[in-house]
Amino acid sequence: MKHFVTGAAGFIGSNLVDRLLASDELVIGYDNLSTGIRRFNDSARANHAFAFVEGDLLDQTRLSAAMRGADFVWHFAANADVRFGIEHPRKDLEQNTIVTYNVLEAMRANSVRKIAFSSTGSIYGETALIPTSEDAPFPVQTSLYGASKLACEGLIAAYCEGFGLQGWIFRFVSVLGERYTHGHIFDFFEMLTNDPTTLPVLGDGHQRKSYIYVQDCVDAMLTAVAKANDKVNIFNLGTDEYIELNESIRIICRSLRVAPKLVYSGGERGWVGDNPFIYLDTRRIRALGWRPKITIAEGVVRTLDWLRVNRWVYEVRA
Amino acid sequence: MKHFVTGAAGFIGSNLVDRLLASDELVIGYDNLSTGIRRFNDSARANHAFAFVEGDLLDQTRLSAAMRGADFVWHFAANADVRFGIEHPRKDLEQNTIVTYNVLEAMRANSVRKIAFSSTGSIYGETALIPTSEDAPFPVQTSLYGASKLACEGLIAAYCEGFGLQGWIFRFVSVLGERYTHGHIFDFFEMLTNDPTTLPVLGDGHQRKSYIYVQDCVDAMLTAVAKANDKVNIFNLGTDEYIELNESIRIICRSLRVAPKLVYSGGERGWVGDNPFIYLDTRRIRALGWRPKITIAEGVVRTLDWLRVNRWVYEVRA
Repeated sequence: MKHFVTGAAGFIGSNLVDRLLASDELVIGYDNLSTGIRRFNDSARANHAFAFVEGDLLDQTRLSAAMRGADFVWHFAANADVRFGIEHPRKDLEQNTIVTYNVLEAMRANSVRKIAFSSTGSIYGETALIPTSEDAPFPVQTSLYGASKLACEGLIAAYCEGFGLQGWIFRFVSVLGERYTHGHIFDFFEMLTNDPTTLPVLGDGHQRKSYIYVQDCVDAMLTAVAKANDKVNIFNLGTDEYIELNESIRIICRSLRVAPKLVYSGGERGWVGDNPFIYLDTRRIRALGWRPKITIAEGVVRTLDWLRVNRWVYEVRA
Repeated sequence: MKHFVTGAAGFIGSNLVDRLLASDELVIGYDNLSTGIRRFNDSARANHAFAFVEGDLLDQTRLSAAMRGADFVWHFAANADVRFGIEHPRKDLEQNTIVTYNVLEAMRANSVRKIAFSSTGSIYGETALIPTSEDAPFPVQTSLYGASKLACEGLIAAYCEGFGLQGWIFRFVSVLGERYTHGHIFDFFEMLTNDPTTLPVLGDGHQRKSYIYVQDCVDAMLTAVAKANDKVNIFNLGTDEYIELNESIRIICRSLRVAPKLVYSGGERGWVGDNPFIYLDTRRIRALGWRPKITIAEGVVRTLDWLRVNRWVYEVRA
């Protein structure tokens, strides 16, 4: 089978690409390298089953041409920046909503019938239902990022109904692991390397978040696509635990052997639209037999280990 | 107070404009007259408190300039065409989602803090919860129209959170009444005028829909804006009844004194994405003291009465 992966040079996309290639699948990677990192596809590029197209998803012609012959689309490219949505509201609209429309139109043009999509737990806003199930009460959006992913989900579901596509929508918690280049561990590692004596922390440190390890995340998606066969298949992806930001900081400091003074910005939320407690109900994906293999604490340590030996990503990201 | 009404020459927009003017409010109407009808603002234009701007919501510069000085935005302009979404998927994206983003950006640019928005009961997709409350289980979209309105709702809520706006979101059932120019009564009246012997009916006629009379709908919105004061206020608007399409046809035929042979296209749904049963739970708006004054049956008859003396709308719409 030939897979078309958008965001193929990104964190989750590049890990998926490697897994698909390891299973002897054919893969076309599509990425504009705006936040994707070319080196993340180095091993993939050594494989003849992989083709990389540097292209923008706003370029409908290029996109549609690149998708020719594909059987399955993994749409992972996105503006994944939850925090700074209000500084550039157009970005979420363009790079998430409009781009997803373009992907769906390219699928129609190429008669590709199946799509998997990386959505987010942020679309539940500040739900009162915790753990949060896929059929939680109709949520009110609190971030432009969540709103844009909600728009994408709606488009995909409507295309499934209207044009006979089949969709798998994954609502992730934050993901940890190799090639992680975005989020609090990434930021804290850099800050503590520069100054191990002081660590500025957004919010009051009591924000509770759930994380999933990237390989567990890829496992879960492959499981869902193999086993769930509805028209629209929606799955929360996460572990059965959560962690306080303060606890995560303790693990990071222990691992890095530092003892900084913590300086809190204060307040329940790290930023406007931050959700102080994210914890998804994952019974639906577990019912398919999937289990995470890595705990959150292990995931934090492994992520640090990876960053420690891949400091070059800070140069690339700068 | 100065109100800015998008879709001011439309069915609901023009009725709202007249009601606002009757309450001595100032009104700027904005409409590109693509589906809006100039004559619907004839009486408004005779009033010095009304200014009309012919403009497109995709024209951000014109929109932003027109909104200057407004205190409240009623965003009613939309592609309201639920049925033909799959024939032109870009239309819902552009004329609903992108345009709503433009309205919100124009509000930011002009420091307008309040917005009321016409959403739709279609965003509940084929929910299992009937009557459907505002906090029904997270729905799966079945139409591009519903998906685009969901995207708009998400944008509005995220702007409320991120930029300190206040929003009132109304999820309508279909609306009947004076200036109705779109829907089954409109179509049936025309078909039965041309040929009273035969009436083609989409679906099996057992689709159950709920309707609200346009003046009741405007009352409900004005009530909600006056009395509900949360950051994001979401209300279903509908009557406490529903009607089978066949019953609606009986009322129409009786009123027109015709007895056509009914020719059903068959199937539960009139078209792809049609919802065979729409019935919203309206306890939330009723808790504010609002009650509909016109029943569905009365609404159907009044709509026919209006069409009978305003046949010119068929020429304008042709």
